[in-house]
Amino acid sequence: PSRLPGYATHQVGVGGAVFDESTRKILVVQDRNQLKNMWTFPGGMSEPGEDIGDTAVREVFEETGIKSEFKSLLSIRQQHANPGAFGKSDMYIICRLQPCSFTINICQHECSRCEWMDLNDLVKAKNTTPVTSRVARLLLYGYREGFDKIDLTMEEFQAVHTGLFYKLFHKELPANYKTIPGM
Amino acid sequence: PSRLPGYATHQVGVGGAVFDESTRKILVVQDRNQLKNMWTFPGGMSEPGEDIGDTAVREVFEETGIKSEFKSLLSIRQQHANPGAFGKSDMYIICRLQPCSFTINICQHECSRCEWMDLNDLVKAKNTTPVTSRVARLLLYGYREGFDKIDLTMEEFQAVHTGLFYKLFHKELPANYKTIPGM
Repeated sequence: PSRLPGYATHQVGVGGAVFDESTRKILVVQDRNQLKNMWTFPGGMSEPGEDIGDTAVREVFEETGIKSEFKSLLSIRQQHANPGAFGKSDMYIICRLQPCSFTINICQHECSRCEWMDLNDLVKAKNTTPVTSRVARLLLYGYREGFDKIDLTMEEFQAVHTGLFYKLFHKELPANYKTIPGM
Repeated sequence: PSRLPGYATHQVGVGGAVFDESTRKILVVQDRNQLKNMWTFPGGMSEPGEDIGDTAVREVFEETGIKSEFKSLLSIRQQHANPGAFGKSDMYIICRLQPCSFTINICQHECSRCEWMDLNDLVKAKNTTPVTSRVARLLLYGYREGFDKIDLTMEEFQAVHTGLFYKLFHKELPANYKTIPGM
Protein backbone atom coordinates (compact mmCIF):
# COMPACT_ATOMS: atom_id res chain seq x y z
CA PRO A 1 0.00 0.00 0.00
CA SER A 2 1.26 3.42 -0.96
CA ARG A 3 1.85 5.94 1.80
CA LEU A 4 1.45 8.76 -0.69
CA PRO A 5 -1.69 10.83 -0.56
CA GLY A 6 -3.53 11.50 -3.77
CA TYR A 7 -2.61 15.09 -4.44
CA ALA A 8 0.42 17.30 -4.66
CA THR A 9 0.78 20.45 -2.58
CA HIS A 10 4.29 21.70 -3.29
CA GLN A 11 6.67 22.70 -6.03
CA VAL A 12 10.20 21.44 -5.76
CA GLY A 13 12.94 23.43 -7.42
CA VAL A 14 16.64 22.68 -7.58
CA GLY A 15 19.63 24.97 -8.01
CA GLY A 16 23.07 23.77 -9.04
CA ALA A 17 26.18 25.26 -7.42
CA VAL A 18 28.80 24.08 -9.92
CA PHE A 19 32.14 24.56 -8.22
CA ASP A 20 35.55 23.74 -9.66
CA GLU A 21 37.98 23.09 -6.82
CA SER A 22 41.09 23.32 -8.99
CA THR A 23 40.40 26.92 -10.10
CA ARG A 24 38.09 28.01 -7.19
CA LYS A 25 35.55 29.13 -9.81
CA ILE A 26 31.79 28.93 -9.40
CA LEU A 27 29.24 29.01 -12.24
CA VAL A 28 26.77 31.88 -11.94
CA VAL A 29 24.04 33.29 -14.16
CA GLN A 30 21.88 36.36 -14.44
CA ASP A 31 18.25 35.61 -15.15
CA ARG A 32 16.77 37.31 -18.22
CA ASN A 33 13.31 37.79 -16.74
CA GLN A 34 13.42 37.88 -12.97
CA LEU A 35 16.18 38.94 -10.62
CA LYS A 36 17.79 41.00 -13.39
CA ASN A 37 21.46 41.87 -12.80
CA MET A 38 21.59 39.56 -9.79
CA TRP A 39 24.05 36.67 -9.81
CA THR A 40 22.40 33.39 -8.88
CA PHE A 41 22.94 29.68 -9.46
CA PRO A 42 21.31 28.10 -12.51
CA GLY A 43 18.35 25.90 -11.67
CA GLY A 44 14.68 25.21 -12.14
CA MET A 45 11.71 23.06 -11.27
CA SER A 46 11.96 19.35 -10.68
CA GLU A 47 9.71 17.26 -12.86
CA PRO A 48 7.54 14.59 -11.25
CA GLY A 49 9.55 11.40 -11.01
CA GLU A 50 12.88 13.18 -11.45
CA ASP A 51 15.63 12.88 -8.83
CA ILE A 52 16.92 16.07 -7.23
CA GLY A 53 20.47 15.58 -8.49
CA ASP A 54 19.23 14.87 -12.01
CA THR A 55 17.19 18.09 -12.00
CA ALA A 56 20.25 20.09 -10.98
CA VAL A 57 22.44 18.55 -13.69
CA ARG A 58 19.72 18.98 -16.36
CA GLU A 59 18.91 22.59 -15.50
CA VAL A 60 22.56 23.60 -15.36
CA PHE A 61 23.13 22.06 -18.78
CA GLU A 62 19.99 23.63 -20.31
CA GLU A 63 20.83 27.11 -19.07
CA THR A 64 24.60 27.19 -19.41
CA GLY A 65 25.75 24.28 -21.60
CA ILE A 66 27.98 23.05 -18.75
CA LYS A 67 28.05 19.31 -18.07
CA SER A 68 28.33 18.39 -14.40
CA GLU A 69 28.06 15.62 -11.87
CA PHE A 70 26.06 15.54 -8.63
CA LYS A 71 28.21 15.62 -5.49
CA SER A 72 25.95 16.49 -2.55
CA LEU A 73 22.96 18.37 -1.27
CA LEU A 74 23.89 21.62 0.47
CA SER A 75 20.79 23.52 1.50
CA ILE A 76 17.00 23.56 1.53
CA ARG A 77 14.88 26.68 1.31
CA GLN A 78 11.23 26.73 2.28
CA GLN A 79 9.06 29.56 1.03
CA HIS A 80 5.35 30.30 1.09
CA ALA A 81 3.76 32.65 -1.39
CA ASN A 82 1.20 35.07 0.01
CA PRO A 83 0.26 33.16 3.15
CA GLY A 84 -3.49 32.84 3.34
CA ALA A 85 -4.01 33.42 -0.38
CA PHE A 86 -3.58 30.20 -2.31
CA GLY A 87 -1.17 28.69 0.14
CA LYS A 88 1.26 27.69 -2.55
CA SER A 89 4.52 26.54 -1.01
CA ASP A 90 7.81 25.65 -2.50
CA MET A 91 10.98 23.86 -1.57
CA TYR A 92 14.16 24.89 -3.29
CA ILE A 93 17.14 22.60 -2.90
CA ILE A 94 20.69 23.62 -3.70
CA CYS A 95 23.13 20.91 -4.77
CA ARG A 96 26.88 20.95 -5.10
CA LEU A 97 27.94 19.83 -8.56
CA GLN A 98 31.36 19.19 -10.03
CA PRO A 99 31.92 20.43 -13.58
CA CYS A 100 32.80 17.96 -16.37
CA SER A 101 33.04 20.68 -19.05
CA PHE A 102 33.95 24.36 -18.96
CA THR A 103 32.81 26.03 -22.20
CA ILE A 104 29.73 28.12 -21.55
CA ASN A 105 26.90 27.94 -24.10
CA ILE A 106 24.22 30.20 -22.68
CA CYS A 107 20.48 29.70 -23.15
CA GLN A 108 19.38 33.10 -24.47
CA HIS A 109 15.77 32.57 -23.42
CA GLU A 110 16.60 32.16 -19.76
CA CYS A 111 19.88 33.93 -19.07
CA SER A 112 21.34 37.28 -20.01
CA ARG A 113 24.78 36.52 -18.57
CA CYS A 114 26.74 33.51 -17.39
CA GLU A 115 30.30 33.23 -16.14
CA TRP A 116 32.80 31.34 -14.06
CA MET A 117 33.38 33.63 -11.07
CA ASP A 118 36.02 33.36 -8.38
CA LEU A 119 34.24 32.08 -5.27
CA ASN A 120 35.72 34.92 -3.17
CA ASP A 121 34.16 37.44 -5.56
CA LEU A 122 30.73 35.83 -5.24
CA VAL A 123 31.05 35.86 -1.45
CA LYS A 124 31.74 39.61 -1.59
CA ALA A 125 29.33 40.46 -4.41
CA LYS A 126 26.55 42.96 -3.71
CA ASN A 127 24.42 42.09 -6.74
CA THR A 128 23.39 38.64 -5.62
CA THR A 129 20.49 37.15 -3.67
CA PRO A 130 20.77 36.46 0.07
CA VAL A 131 20.53 32.71 -0.55
CA THR A 132 23.23 32.73 -3.23
CA SER A 133 25.50 34.75 -0.95
CA ARG A 134 24.91 32.42 1.96
CA VAL A 135 25.57 29.30 -0.11
CA ALA A 136 28.73 30.93 -1.52
CA ARG A 137 29.95 31.35 2.08
CA LEU A 138 29.03 27.75 2.84
CA LEU A 139 31.04 26.63 -0.20
CA LEU A 140 34.01 28.74 0.90
CA TYR A 141 33.87 27.06 4.30
CA GLY A 142 33.77 23.64 2.61
CA TYR A 143 36.55 24.55 0.18
CA ARG A 144 38.84 25.66 3.01
CA GLU A 145 37.98 23.14 5.70
CA GLY A 146 36.68 20.13 3.80
CA PHE A 147 33.43 19.50 1.98
CA ASP A 148 32.49 16.90 4.61
CA LYS A 149 31.72 19.93 6.81
CA ILE A 150 28.86 21.04 4.55
CA ASP A 151 27.81 18.10 2.38
CA LEU A 152 24.69 16.01 2.80
CA THR A 153 25.52 12.79 1.05
CA MET A 154 23.07 10.44 -0.60
CA GLU A 155 22.35 6.78 -0.04
CA GLU A 156 19.77 4.56 -1.62
CA PHE A 157 17.45 2.31 0.41
CA GLN A 158 14.64 -0.06 -0.41
CA ALA A 159 11.21 0.56 1.10
CA VAL A 160 9.81 -2.17 3.33
CA HIS A 161 6.46 -2.89 1.72
CA THR A 162 6.55 -1.38 -1.75
CA GLY A 163 10.03 -2.59 -2.68
CA LEU A 164 10.60 0.81 -4.31
CA PHE A 165 13.95 2.50 -3.89
CA TYR A 166 14.34 5.87 -2.31
CA LYS A 167 17.19 8.23 -1.70
CA LEU A 168 18.12 9.55 1.70
CA PHE A 169 20.27 12.66 2.21
CA HIS A 170 21.95 13.56 5.50
CA LYS A 171 25.36 14.33 6.95
CA GLU A 172 27.76 11.52 6.21
CA LEU A 173 27.62 8.93 9.01
CA PRO A 174 30.97 7.47 10.13
CA ALA A 175 31.31 3.85 9.02
CA ASN A 176 31.33 2.46 12.56
CA TYR A 177 27.86 3.88 13.14
CA LYS A 178 26.55 2.33 9.93
CA THR A 179 27.69 -1.13 10.97
CA ILE A 180 26.25 -1.36 14.48
CA PRO A 181 24.44 -4.74 14.40
CA GLY A 182 20.75 -4.53 13.64
CA MET A 183 20.60 -2.78 10.31
CA PRO B 1 6.76 38.81 -9.81
CA SER B 2 6.44 35.36 -8.34
CA ARG B 3 9.03 32.77 -9.27
CA LEU B 4 6.56 30.01 -8.46
CA PRO B 5 4.99 28.10 -11.30
CA GLY B 6 1.27 27.61 -11.27
CA TYR B 7 0.98 24.01 -10.23
CA ALA B 8 2.22 21.66 -7.54
CA THR B 9 4.03 18.43 -8.38
CA HIS B 10 5.13 17.03 -5.04
CA GLN B 11 3.91 16.00 -1.65
CA VAL B 12 6.00 17.06 1.31
CA GLY B 13 5.83 14.98 4.47
CA VAL B 14 7.60 15.55 7.75
CA GLY B 15 8.60 13.12 10.48
CA GLY B 16 9.51 14.17 14.01
CA ALA B 17 12.40 12.46 15.81
CA VAL B 18 11.62 13.57 19.39
CA PHE B 19 14.75 12.85 21.40
CA ASP B 20 15.28 13.54 25.08
CA GLU B 21 18.99 13.97 25.77
CA SER B 22 18.67 13.63 29.55
CA THR B 23 17.18 10.12 29.38
CA ARG B 24 18.45 9.06 25.89
CA LYS B 25 14.86 8.17 25.00
CA ILE B 26 13.33 8.55 21.56
CA LEU B 27 9.60 8.70 20.79
CA VAL B 28 8.46 5.96 18.42
CA VAL B 29 5.09 4.76 17.14
CA GLN B 30 3.60 1.81 15.33
CA ASP B 31 1.20 2.76 12.58
CA ARG B 32 -2.26 1.25 12.82
CA ASN B 33 -2.76 0.89 9.08
CA GLN B 34 0.54 0.70 7.25
CA LEU B 35 3.89 -0.59 8.42
CA LYS B 36 2.21 -2.65 11.16
CA ASN B 37 4.52 -3.72 13.99
CA MET B 38 7.29 -1.51 12.63
CA TRP B 39 8.67 1.25 14.85
CA THR B 40 8.81 4.59 13.06
CA PHE B 41 8.78 8.28 13.92
CA PRO B 42 5.42 10.04 14.12
CA GLY B 43 4.75 12.38 11.21
CA GLY B 44 2.54 13.25 8.31
CA MET B 45 1.91 15.52 5.36
CA SER B 46 2.75 19.20 5.39
CA GLU B 47 -0.17 21.47 4.60
CA PRO B 48 0.28 24.19 1.99
CA GLY B 49 1.65 27.27 3.71
CA GLU B 50 2.85 25.32 6.75
CA ASP B 51 6.51 25.41 7.81
CA ILE B 52 8.38 22.11 8.02
CA GLY B 53 9.10 22.46 11.73
CA ASP B 54 5.47 23.34 12.46
CA THR B 55 4.29 20.23 10.60
CA ALA B 56 6.60 18.05 12.67
CA VAL B 57 5.47 19.54 15.98
CA ARG B 58 1.77 19.35 14.97
CA GLU B 59 1.91 15.76 13.71
CA VAL B 60 3.82 14.55 16.77
CA PHE B 61 1.23 16.16 19.03
CA GLU B 62 -1.74 14.80 17.06
CA GLU B 63 -0.42 11.24 17.04
CA THR B 64 1.18 10.98 20.47
CA GLY B 65 0.02 13.89 22.66
CA ILE B 66 3.66 14.91 23.18
CA LYS B 67 4.48 18.61 23.01
CA SER B 68 7.82 19.41 21.44
CA GLU B 69 10.01 22.11 19.99
CA PHE B 70 11.81 22.20 16.63
CA LYS B 71 15.60 21.92 16.89
CA SER B 72 16.95 21.07 13.43
CA LEU B 73 16.45 19.32 10.14
CA LEU B 74 18.24 15.96 9.96
CA SER B 75 17.48 14.21 6.72
CA ILE B 76 15.59 14.36 3.44
CA ARG B 77 14.16 11.37 1.63
CA GLN B 78 13.17 11.47 -2.01
CA GLN B 79 10.85 8.79 -3.33
CA HIS B 80 9.00 8.25 -6.59
CA ALA B 81 5.98 6.01 -6.82
CA ASN B 82 5.83 3.71 -9.82
CA PRO B 83 8.19 5.62 -12.11
CA GLY B 84 6.56 6.14 -15.47
CA ALA B 85 3.05 5.64 -14.14
CA PHE B 86 1.69 8.81 -12.63
CA GLY B 87 5.06 10.21 -11.70
CA LYS B 88 3.98 11.12 -8.21
CA SER B 89 6.98 12.11 -6.14
CA ASP B 90 7.39 12.87 -2.52
CA MET B 91 9.87 14.48 -0.21
CA TYR B 92 9.94 13.33 3.38
CA ILE B 93 11.89 15.45 5.81
CA ILE B 94 12.93 14.27 9.26
CA CYS B 95 13.38 16.88 11.97
CA ARG B 96 14.98 16.66 15.39
CA LEU B 97 12.58 17.82 18.09
CA GLN B 98 13.08 18.33 21.80
CA PRO B 99 10.23 17.17 24.03
CA CYS B 100 8.41 19.66 26.27
CA SER B 101 6.07 17.03 27.78
CA PHE B 102 6.42 13.29 28.39
CA THR B 103 2.97 11.79 29.00
CA ILE B 104 1.86 9.85 25.94
CA ASN B 105 -1.74 10.25 24.81
CA ILE B 106 -1.98 8.10 21.71
CA CYS B 107 -4.25 8.79 18.72
CA GLN B 108 -6.13 5.50 18.37
CA HIS B 109 -7.01 6.17 14.74
CA GLU B 110 -3.43 6.44 13.60
CA CYS B 111 -1.27 4.46 16.04
CA SER B 112 -1.51 1.07 17.67
CA ARG B 113 1.51 1.63 19.92
CA CYS B 114 3.66 4.50 21.09
CA GLU B 115 6.54 4.55 23.55
CA TRP B 116 9.72 6.24 24.72
CA MET B 117 12.44 3.83 23.63
CA ASP B 118 16.11 3.87 24.57
CA LEU B 119 17.96 5.15 21.49
CA ASN B 120 20.37 2.18 21.61
CA ASP B 121 17.39 -0.18 21.41
CA LEU B 122 16.02 1.60 18.34
CA VAL B 123 19.45 1.42 16.68
CA LYS B 124 19.48 -2.35 17.25
CA ALA B 125 15.77 -2.99 16.56
CA LYS B 126 14.87 -5.36 13.73
CA ASN B 127 11.23 -4.28 13.46
CA THR B 128 11.84 -0.82 12.11
CA THR B 129 12.15 0.76 8.66
CA PRO B 130 15.55 1.33 7.01
CA VAL B 131 15.09 5.10 7.25
CA THR B 132 14.15 5.02 10.93
CA SER B 133 17.14 2.80 11.67
CA ARG B 134 19.48 5.08 9.76
CA VAL B 135 18.18 8.23 11.47
CA ALA B 136 18.48 6.48 14.86
CA ARG B 137 22.18 5.89 14.08
CA LEU B 138 22.55 9.51 13.02
CA LEU B 139 21.01 10.61 16.34
CA LEU B 140 23.34 8.31 18.27
CA TYR B 141 26.29 9.90 16.47
CA GLY B 142 24.96 13.36 17.35
CA TYR B 143 24.22 12.38 20.96
CA ARG B 144 27.75 11.07 21.48
CA GLU B 145 29.77 13.55 19.43
CA GLY B 146 27.64 16.69 19.39
CA PHE B 147 24.45 17.53 17.51
CA ASP B 148 26.39 20.10 15.46
CA LYS B 149 27.75 17.05 13.58
CA ILE B 150 24.31 16.16 12.23
CA ASP B 151 22.05 19.23 12.50
CA LEU B 152 20.95 21.46 9.66
CA THR B 153 20.02 24.68 11.37
CA MET B 154 17.48 27.20 10.14
CA GLU B 155 17.80 30.88 9.36
CA GLU B 156 15.26 33.28 7.99
CA PHE B 157 15.96 35.60 5.03
CA GLN B 158 13.96 38.12 3.08
CA ALA B 159 13.50 37.63 -0.66
CA VAL B 160 14.87 40.38 -2.92
CA HIS B 161 11.81 41.29 -4.98
CA THR B 162 8.79 39.90 -3.20
CA GLY B 163 9.80 40.95 0.32
CA LEU B 164 8.52 37.58 1.52
CA PHE B 165 10.48 35.71 4.16
CA TYR B 166 11.86 32.27 3.60
CA LYS B 167 13.70 29.76 5.69
CA LEU B 168 17.03 28.28 4.73
CA PHE B 169 18.39 25.05 6.24
CA HIS B 170 22.01 23.96 6.00
CA LYS B 171 24.94 22.97 8.17
CA GLU B 172 25.66 25.68 10.70
CA LEU B 173 28.13 28.18 9.26
CA PRO B 174 30.88 29.42 11.62
CA ALA B 175 30.29 33.05 12.60
CA ASN B 176 33.43 34.34 10.87
CA TYR B 177 32.10 33.08 7.53
CA LYS B 178 28.76 34.80 8.08
CA THR B 179 30.40 38.16 8.65
CA ILE B 180 32.72 38.35 5.63
CA PRO B 181 31.91 41.82 4.21
CA GLY B 182 29.37 41.83 1.42
CA MET B 183 26.32 40.18 2.93
